[in-house]
Amino acid sequence: MNNETPAPVTVLGLGLMGTALARAFLKAGHPTTVWNRTATKAGPLVAEGARLAPTLGDALEAGGVTIVCLTDYPAVRELLGDAGLEGTTLVNLTSGDSAQARETAVWAEKRGARYLDGAIMAIPSSIGTDEAAILLSGPRPDFDLGALGAVSHLGEDPGLASLYDVAGLAMMWSILNAWLQGTAMLKTAGVDAATYAVFARQIAVGVAGWLPGYAEQVDRGSFPAEVSALETDARAMAHLVEESEALGVDAGLPKLIKAMADRAIAAGHGGEQYPVLIREFERAGE
Amino acid sequence: MNNETPAPVTVLGLGLMGTALARAFLKAGHPTTVWNRTATKAGPLVAEGARLAPTLGDALEAGGVTIVCLTDYPAVRELLGDAGLEGTTLVNLTSGDSAQARETAVWAEKRGARYLDGAIMAIPSSIGTDEAAILLSGPRPDFDLGALGAVSHLGEDPGLASLYDVAGLAMMWSILNAWLQGTAMLKTAGVDAATYAVFARQIAVGVAGWLPGYAEQVDRGSFPAEVSALETDARAMAHLVEESEALGVDAGLPKLIKAMADRAIAAGHGGEQYPVLIREFERAGE
Repeated sequence: MNNETPAPVTVLGLGLMGTALARAFLKAGHPTTVWNRTATKAGPLVAEGARLAPTLGDALEAGGVTIVCLTDYPAVRELLGDAGLEGTTLVNLTSGDSAQARETAVWAEKRGARYLDGAIMAIPSSIGTDEAAILLSGPRPDFDLGALGAVSHLGEDPGLASLYDVAGLAMMWSILNAWLQGTAMLKTAGVDAATYAVFARQIAVGVAGWLPGYAEQVDRGSFPAEVSALETDARAMAHLVEESEALGVDAGLPKLIKAMADRAIAAGHGGEQYPVLIREFERAGE
Repeated sequence: MNNETPAPVTVLGLGLMGTALARAFLKAGHPTTVWNRTATKAGPLVAEGARLAPTLGDALEAGGVTIVCLTDYPAVRELLGDAGLEGTTLVNLTSGDSAQARETAVWAEKRGARYLDGAIMAIPSSIGTDEAAILLSGPRPDFDLGALGAVSHLGEDPGLASLYDVAGLAMMWSILNAWLQGTAMLKTAGVDAATYAVFARQIAVGVAGWLPGYAEQVDRGSFPAEVSALETDARAMAHLVEESEALGVDAGLPKLIKAMADRAIAAGHGGEQYPVLIREFERAGE
């Protein structure tokens, strides 16, 4: 549908993110209806061409897709609790967890709506650019949200968007923490952060490239030590802990790395390769 | 010196890694002398063209650079304790920490050697390819070890190679752990590891690209919340902890992420941006 006129959309909730979403739709030429509990928040968007729905019911009847972006899931249920949802298509981009997403999908579908859950991996200022990852899960969309950013449909399970989102955040913080760990260590030797960042970036990109291959081991459930054995890694982990402590750098991250490996070694996996740790991640710690 | 005849080299220590180093030198055409306490280990290399030095003294006098690759630093000091080092150039690629590297540099220089310390970020089978990162620190080298892999000279401080090495390993394990965390979470929704790995890789490469910019904040010591404030991140971290626990996935990594941020927030940095955490990493935890 690339060359068709952009379809009408409605945006419920005009906080920082909702406003950014509505603005991106407007820029891409979508006829855009907006609604917010405090109507004055819609002023700037109306000046840019949005139509302010006089009531929530009117907003839901404006046709096309309705994007919901509120504070949290209880706010979504409260707002839509008395509204007529029959025949509507809701895309809920409110932040929440996978259980909330699945429960809200059941709730909305019972009331006659088509429901997709989504997550936004972006800050408001990057909405409308390729930097903004928009994750969707639920029924395969027959509408185009490309105006918002790089849209991915992850599958039918409405919980997927929030799971991918939070897993992606874990990756983000882990890389930042590992980089800070190394930065703090190198600073003790007078190396500035900018110098170390170049190296850290190369390592991170290189390791990211291993993930698809390591994933094959996880999916096969077989972890031969083709590159190195976990018990060899564990010796280097001990060095990392000792070096951090010797330098007066926080050793919490190195200790956690070593503790996870030690658990797997204690469980008899010392001769296998790193991805065998999946079993420890799947087994909630004591 | 790219087009000159490869210079003579000597390799002391023919374990798995030392043998791989000597073999890479031979392949690149370096006249290669080898020595090992147990001389029989040199057999295959001699068959490939290496010269076996009859004594350690002879090996050290063979000219050019002497690569040392033993089990640990005490083994290096023990081996070279009585040897004549005057005028030799030693490149010690034995695994160890930065303090050992610096001490050994002082020790070797007092005895008349030029000393570089190094670290090998590679497994033996990748030596001789661009996959093998060879980190050197100490006096700027006037010799070419390009036969071994991608060589970087990190600076004059002989401790740098081991610090970069261990910091790089922290990055490696952190990415693998974050990926396993996400893999375990997505597996609960029936998503296989290969599917999630594609997403995890994209996130990792994207975040790696932020490091140079974030490093500028660390070097300036100023952390304005241009992208997001730490206290906003902390709310999403709480979601990550709760979601992991709800799914029965180990929450050790999420909790560590949140604990580091909470420390910085408690220290008054909630309105600043993520790299402000450098102060927590530099301050050894209680």
